[in-house]
Amino acid sequence: MEKIEEINEWLKNNRLKGIKFLQLLVQERSTRGEESRAQAIIVEKLRELGLQLDIWEIGNEGLKSHPHYCSDRDNYNGNPNVVGVLKGTGGGRSIILNGHIDVVPEGDLTKWEHDPYSGVIKKGRLYGRGATDMKGGTVSLLMAIEAIQSLGIKLKGDVIFQSVIEEESGGAGTLAAVLRGYRADGAIIPEPTNMKLFPKQQGSMWFRITVKGRAAHGGTRYEGISAIEKMIIVVEQLKKLEEKRNEGITDPLYAAAPIPIPINIGKFYSGEWPSSVPDIAVIEGRIGIAPNETIREAEKAMESFLMSLGGLDDWFINHPPEIEWFGGRWLPGNLDSGHELMEIISASFQQVMKKEPRIEASPWGTDGGILSNVGKIPVVVFGPGVTGSAHETNEYIVLEDMISTAQIIALSLLKWCGSDDDRG
Amino acid sequence: MEKIEEINEWLKNNRLKGIKFLQLLVQERSTRGEESRAQAIIVEKLRELGLQLDIWEIGNEGLKSHPHYCSDRDNYNGNPNVVGVLKGTGGGRSIILNGHIDVVPEGDLTKWEHDPYSGVIKKGRLYGRGATDMKGGTVSLLMAIEAIQSLGIKLKGDVIFQSVIEEESGGAGTLAAVLRGYRADGAIIPEPTNMKLFPKQQGSMWFRITVKGRAAHGGTRYEGISAIEKMIIVVEQLKKLEEKRNEGITDPLYAAAPIPIPINIGKFYSGEWPSSVPDIAVIEGRIGIAPNETIREAEKAMESFLMSLGGLDDWFINHPPEIEWFGGRWLPGNLDSGHELMEIISASFQQVMKKEPRIEASPWGTDGGILSNVGKIPVVVFGPGVTGSAHETNEYIVLEDMISTAQIIALSLLKWCGSDDDRG
Repeated sequence: MEKIEEINEWLKNNRLKGIKFLQLLVQERSTRGEESRAQAIIVEKLRELGLQLDIWEIGNEGLKSHPHYCSDRDNYNGNPNVVGVLKGTGGGRSIILNGHIDVVPEGDLTKWEHDPYSGVIKKGRLYGRGATDMKGGTVSLLMAIEAIQSLGIKLKGDVIFQSVIEEESGGAGTLAAVLRGYRADGAIIPEPTNMKLFPKQQGSMWFRITVKGRAAHGGTRYEGISAIEKMIIVVEQLKKLEEKRNEGITDPLYAAAPIPIPINIGKFYSGEWPSSVPDIAVIEGRIGIAPNETIREAEKAMESFLMSLGGLDDWFINHPPEIEWFGGRWLPGNLDSGHELMEIISASFQQVMKKEPRIEASPWGTDGGILSNVGKIPVVVFGPGVTGSAHETNEYIVLEDMISTAQIIALSLLKWCGSDDDRG
Repeated sequence: MEKIEEINEWLKNNRLKGIKFLQLLVQERSTRGEESRAQAIIVEKLRELGLQLDIWEIGNEGLKSHPHYCSDRDNYNGNPNVVGVLKGTGGGRSIILNGHIDVVPEGDLTKWEHDPYSGVIKKGRLYGRGATDMKGGTVSLLMAIEAIQSLGIKLKGDVIFQSVIEEESGGAGTLAAVLRGYRADGAIIPEPTNMKLFPKQQGSMWFRITVKGRAAHGGTRYEGISAIEKMIIVVEQLKKLEEKRNEGITDPLYAAAPIPIPINIGKFYSGEWPSSVPDIAVIEGRIGIAPNETIREAEKAMESFLMSLGGLDDWFINHPPEIEWFGGRWLPGNLDSGHELMEIISASFQQVMKKEPRIEASPWGTDGGILSNVGKIPVVVFGPGVTGSAHETNEYIVLEDMISTAQIIALSLLKWCGSDDDRG
């Protein structure tokens, strides 16, 4: 039997085991600061698979003083990063398989049809916070490793499985893993891409813009300067900046994205009293960073845009909007589509799915930005989750895709790392 | 000596006493819920003047069930309304002299040059929260009464002095006084008008508008509908509604006001996460009510405006903005400029100030709306405070104006109420 068939067979026979494992993981709420119990489940599985375990609490000085460390979390105690290494027999390419264990908060509970941590299965979908982003992807990785182990296949290159914390809050977990010395010849991150392949990814970072006005009584509002009105000018102009920044992006991988690197205004806060003219307004948002752009270039683009507003409205000459770069920051990723890791995953996809994979640029940042920019590791983001379901209520994953992804990754490991018996 | 000269003389001699009294009042912080100590100072003064005292805690069922009761305060215990009546000898017109004891919060303390409750005097100005709005006006009233009492002048009509709570929060104090039975042939409210006479006043009420969007990840913001963007449409259109509503106001009293009845957006709140498309946005504001307009008419104008937005943006057809009328509500006032109370105050102004008074429509609501609409009492708003200083940091009053206003009010009382010896 060909290895592809053996793996196919194994996954068919162990389908339910994998699904049960995902259910277990989803049922363990692992929001920020609460990752330990879900990590314990991962650790148990890695032990079962006989991987070399590395479990450590991140947050040392080397991490905190790193220029790409970006976190407001002061305490990582008890919620470790977990790495399991499957040592190769030698002579093959190594690979990092990276998944994050943290999930975003469940949001408005009343909008969930089931408890967000039920892991309920209906019509081939498993529901729950984290099912798609990205515990399902992590299960694909672990099933791929388990299939290879169970079938007695020996890989030549090392497989470094990582279950990190903090992806949703700026990537400190993956950064810590890179700084701990984990490097490899390639990496796969099974974030929810709808099984598309993302060799490139948009980076992003958060900003806060503050605009001042002049207070007045609402009954004589013409005596004041409304910070809301001035901020609306900023918001409208930001759309033009977004337009201009996106005009420059001609990469065909972005053909399907209406706005390759969006500027999103996520918050708008101003005023304290209905009948006063507000004298301060604040927006918070995220600016997309192009794959070939640096953080600093994006910052500069925004800063010079804000400087230019004085030409549009005299008020801004003496009261220029102020910008802070705070909170989340995700580095862009920029792998050539012709990279051999891409070719191998594409070929495996085609073998399993009997069709060409869709290759696009990621519309959002992932820890791939850290692996590629800091770790200098070629990264492909490719996973089974439903893109539109991430961070949403009633988040779900299509279980069939999770199994297919496990199969594609197992095949890719054979080809990338090589195996003693190179039938793959 | 003519009465005008006697009063002039008395005020000159008692100038410092009045200023000290204002200082005492300003030093007693009387923000909402903390009115008792300042009221105690008023009570002491009324006792000294020999007025018939009526001190009561408002908040009975009759008040709370009144259609114009508008308050979110559940407890008035220990912070009474205070009324002092100077009974006339009979046969004259009665008058209500109404001042509110509540002051708005002091705001950003770092912006105050002195402690907001210092009552410090510099270059003829007394500084402090409430100095202008409207403890200075209240002192003008009390000095006028004291001058008349001290000079042994007997008025024919009753003078009903009121020191009410809750003006800054919807007028429950004055409404309670009306419902307790206090009516008169006329009323003066010495709110800070810069010594202008306001026979008419803009009413106003608060509104809250909620607009829904559809959440999405900021990196694919085009998949969502930003509630901020939709709310900006509402804000921009509200300016057109304001324009339309003000086109209809041709009263010459509004000639000096760029916008007679403004719509002010005082708050804009939306979003919780920089990299999410916000699915809900809320604004709070106040809409000005024309002197000849009813509350219900203004509500209807706003409600049908919101209904019309569907014609402008399809999103609003299935997601119409929702409006709530909440919190503050101030009835408009609409006294004919030729009313005898106006004529008497104007003439007294001219006698004291040696110039014509400026007569305008008030750009903001006062308790005059309640006195005139509910109590059916002709009301003139006229006081010594500095309009632009009300609710501001470093609030102040020009002390000379406080004394001049006392004189004008004293003369007006002689003429309006009549006196036994009708030399006035």
